[in-house]
Amino acid sequence: MAPPLITLLTDFGTADHYVGAMKGVMACICPEARFVDITHDIEPYAIADAAFTLGQSWQYYPKGTIHLVVVDPGVGSTRRPILAEVGGHNFVAPDNGVLTMVLASDPIAIVRQITNQRYFRNPVSQTFHGRDIFAPVAAHLASGVPAVEFGDRIDDPVRLPFHDLQNPDGSCDGAVLRIDRFGNIITSLRADLAETKESGCLEIGSRFVTRLAASYSEVEPGSLFLIRGSSGFLEISINQGNAAREIGAGTGDPVRFRRAGDMPANL
Amino acid sequence: MAPPLITLLTDFGTADHYVGAMKGVMACICPEARFVDITHDIEPYAIADAAFTLGQSWQYYPKGTIHLVVVDPGVGSTRRPILAEVGGHNFVAPDNGVLTMVLASDPIAIVRQITNQRYFRNPVSQTFHGRDIFAPVAAHLASGVPAVEFGDRIDDPVRLPFHDLQNPDGSCDGAVLRIDRFGNIITSLRADLAETKESGCLEIGSRFVTRLAASYSEVEPGSLFLIRGSSGFLEISINQGNAAREIGAGTGDPVRFRRAGDMPANL
Amino acid sequence: MAPPLITLLTDFGTADHYVGAMKGVMACICPEARFVDITHDIEPYAIADAAFTLGQSWQYYPKGTIHLVVVDPGVGSTRRPILAEVGGHNFVAPDNGVLTMVLASDPIAIVRQITNQRYFRNPVSQTFHGRDIFAPVAAHLASGVPAVEFGDRIDDPVRLPFHDLQNPDGSCDGAVLRIDRFGNIITSLRADLAETKESGCLEIGSRFVTRLAASYSEVEPGSLFLIRGSSGFLEISINQGNAAREIGAGTGDPVRFRRAGDMPANL
Repeated sequence: MAPPLITLLTDFGTADHYVGAMKGVMACICPEARFVDITHDIEPYAIADAAFTLGQSWQYYPKGTIHLVVVDPGVGSTRRPILAEVGGHNFVAPDNGVLTMVLASDPIAIVRQITNQRYFRNPVSQTFHGRDIFAPVAAHLASGVPAVEFGDRIDDPVRLPFHDLQNPDGSCDGAVLRIDRFGNIITSLRADLAETKESGCLEIGSRFVTRLAASYSEVEPGSLFLIRGSSGFLEISINQGNAAREIGAGTGDPVRFRRAGDMPANL
Repeated sequence: MAPPLITLLTDFGTADHYVGAMKGVMACICPEARFVDITHDIEPYAIADAAFTLGQSWQYYPKGTIHLVVVDPGVGSTRRPILAEVGGHNFVAPDNGVLTMVLASDPIAIVRQITNQRYFRNPVSQTFHGRDIFAPVAAHLASGVPAVEFGDRIDDPVRLPFHDLQNPDGSCDGAVLRIDRFGNIITSLRADLAETKESGCLEIGSRFVTRLAASYSEVEPGSLFLIRGSSGFLEISINQGNAAREIGAGTGDPVRFRRAGDMPANL
Repeated sequence: MAPPLITLLTDFGTADHYVGAMKGVMACICPEARFVDITHDIEPYAIADAAFTLGQSWQYYPKGTIHLVVVDPGVGSTRRPILAEVGGHNFVAPDNGVLTMVLASDPIAIVRQITNQRYFRNPVSQTFHGRDIFAPVAAHLASGVPAVEFGDRIDDPVRLPFHDLQNPDGSCDGAVLRIDRFGNIITSLRADLAETKESGCLEIGSRFVTRLAASYSEVEPGSLFLIRGSSGFLEISINQGNAAREIGAGTGDPVRFRRAGDMPANL
C-alpha cells in the first residue's frame, strides 16, 4: 500500500518558515506521510482564490488523500476549524468558505467541527493554527485516527457565493475567478455555455469576445478569443500573449455570456 | 521504519537548476531519502536570515532528520564545511554563522569540520559546493555513514551576534529579525518580556507600540499592536494589514522594549 | 528497491493549480511514485531556457529517473508529444526542442512519438496536455509500462541551435544561456576554452572581461571576472555582486571568446 498523501494549500508563501514548520509537525506524527504542495502563493487572506485553486486540484488525487488548506484570516477568532469528508477525500481547513467548491461537488459531504484538543499541539499559539491545529489533525488522520474522533458533525459550513446566474433573457452573469500565470482569464461561467461557435459571446468591461477557439494554437497571436478551459469554465485567452494585461482584467471583475440573438448588432 | 528525511534551506531560489542538481546527487547516493524544502528564497548571501529561518523550523522535525543548509557567500574560500549534531538532529552547512540559533539551543552540540573527501563529488567545483560537498555529505549521512567519518571535532564554529540585551534600566534592546509575508515584524526580543498588558511597550523608529493583543482578530483592522508571536519572539502586527509597510520597518532595524515605568509620559 | 522518481520542469509557475493537478493525476496512476520539482519558474514559453535548465539537472539523477518536461507553447497544435530514452533516463515532453541538450549528450538516444491514447486521460483537453497526456504517460512509465508501448520511433526530433561556433581566427562565438539568481552570466561557451589565465578574454557588449578566477572569493567584491562555471560553461561574475545588472546583459546576448593574440591592444 502506498504511504498516506497529504496535499498543502496555503497563503504562507515559500520564503518564511511556516510551511516548513507544518511539515515538521506532520513528519513527527506520521513519519511515513508524503507531502505534495498545491501552492503556497495564494494572496494573503484570499479565501475565494484558494477555494478555486483547491476546487481545481483535489479531484485529480486518489481517494484517501488528505488536503490541508490554511488560508485563515480569522486565526485566533471564533471561526471553527473543520474536517470534511467529500468523495473519499479528507479536507482539514478553517471554516471560512475555502471548501465552497469542494462541498458543492458532493451533496452528501460530511463536515465536522474539530474540537478534540487531544490532537492539537500544546500549547496552541493564537497566531499559527496551521502548525498547532490543522497540521497535527491532518497528520493524525493520515496515521489512521478515524474522522469521528475529531469532533461532531455540523450542517452549516460557510459557503461563498460563486455566482453564475442565469438571467430571464438567457444571458448568464459571472465573474473572473482567476488570472493565471499566462494571463488567461478564467471565469466562473461553465464551459458548456459556449457549446458551438454560434452560441454567443462573452462581455467583459467594454469588450465583446465573440470568437470561440478549440485550442490556443488555432488562433493567430494577438487576437482575443474565448475557449472552453481545462478547468471546465469559459476562459478568455490570447495565443502566446497575455489576455488579462491586454484587457486590463482582474479577479472579481463581472462577465456576462450573451446568447447569439442577444448580441449587440454591430458585432 | 520511515525513510530518512533531508530538509533543504538555501538562497538558490527556485528558478535555477541548483536545487534540482543537489537533489539528484542525493537521490543517487541515498535513493530512499525524502526531501522537504524549508525555503530556497533566502535573499542571496543573507546568512542571518537563514539562521533565523532554520531556527524556526528544524525543531519541529523528528530526531534523526538531516538539515542541509546552503547559504554560502564564501564558497571557494577557506571557510570550513561543518557537520553539527544537535538534539538528535544533523546539520550540514558552511561555517559562517548560519547554525547560530541551532547551536544556541544545545550546549552539548558536537560540531565537526567536514574534511573527508571520500564523501565529496569528484572533482569539486569551486563555485557550487552545495552540489559537490554539502549534498553528498548529507546523503551519505542519510544512508548511514556515522558522523565521525566526515572529520574531526572543532570547538569554534562561527556564531552571529543575535542581540537581545538587557539594559541597566530594565529596558531590552533587540533588532528586527525578519519581515514575514504578511508584514508581521518579528523581533529578536523574547515573547515573555511582555507577560501582561501592563509589562511595557515596544519602541521602533519613532513609534511606541503599547497595545498587547492575544490574537490578530481581537484588534480592529488598521491598528498596530504587539503580540507574542508563534516563533517565541515579540512581533508587531496589524490585523489583516501589513505592519512593516505601515511603519517602514526592515530587517536589522533596532527595537527596544521599555518597562511600564520607563515609558514616555505622553503615551 | 527505491520507489520510482519523477522530476518535473515546467513554465506553469507555482501559484496556479496546474502542477498540483498533474501530480494528482500521476499519484492515481502510480501511487508509489515520488516527485521532485526541478523548477516551474521557466518564463512562459521559454523553450531554450527550459532546455538549458534540464540539461543542467537531469544528469545528476539516478538511472531510471523519469523527467517530465512541460514548456509547451504549441499545446493543441500538431506538435508531437515525445518520449526519449537517453543514458538510462526517460524524458516525456513536447517535441519543440526542449530536449536539445539532453539529446546532444547521447548519439544513441531513442525517441518515440507518443501516440497510444490508451495512456492518456479521457477526454484530452486542448489546452492542458500536461495533465491529460504528459503526466499520465510519465506515471504509466513509472509503473512499469515499457517505452515501446507508447508509440513508434522517430528520427527527427526538433533540436534548437545552441551555437558555440569556432571562427577561422580561433575566436569562438556564443550567447548568454541564462542569468542566474545571483546575476552570474552563464554563456554557451565551453569552460575549457579558458584553460589558463593567458588563454584569452570574453567580449560581451562593449566590454572585454580579461581576468580569469578559480573561485568567486579570490576576487575583491566589485570586479568583473571570468570563471569556469559549475555548469561546464564560461560564466561572468562579480564576487557577492550582480554581474548581469552591472553589464546590462540578458539571455540570448551574443558573446565572443577571443584568443590571447587576438585581443584589442589597449587591454
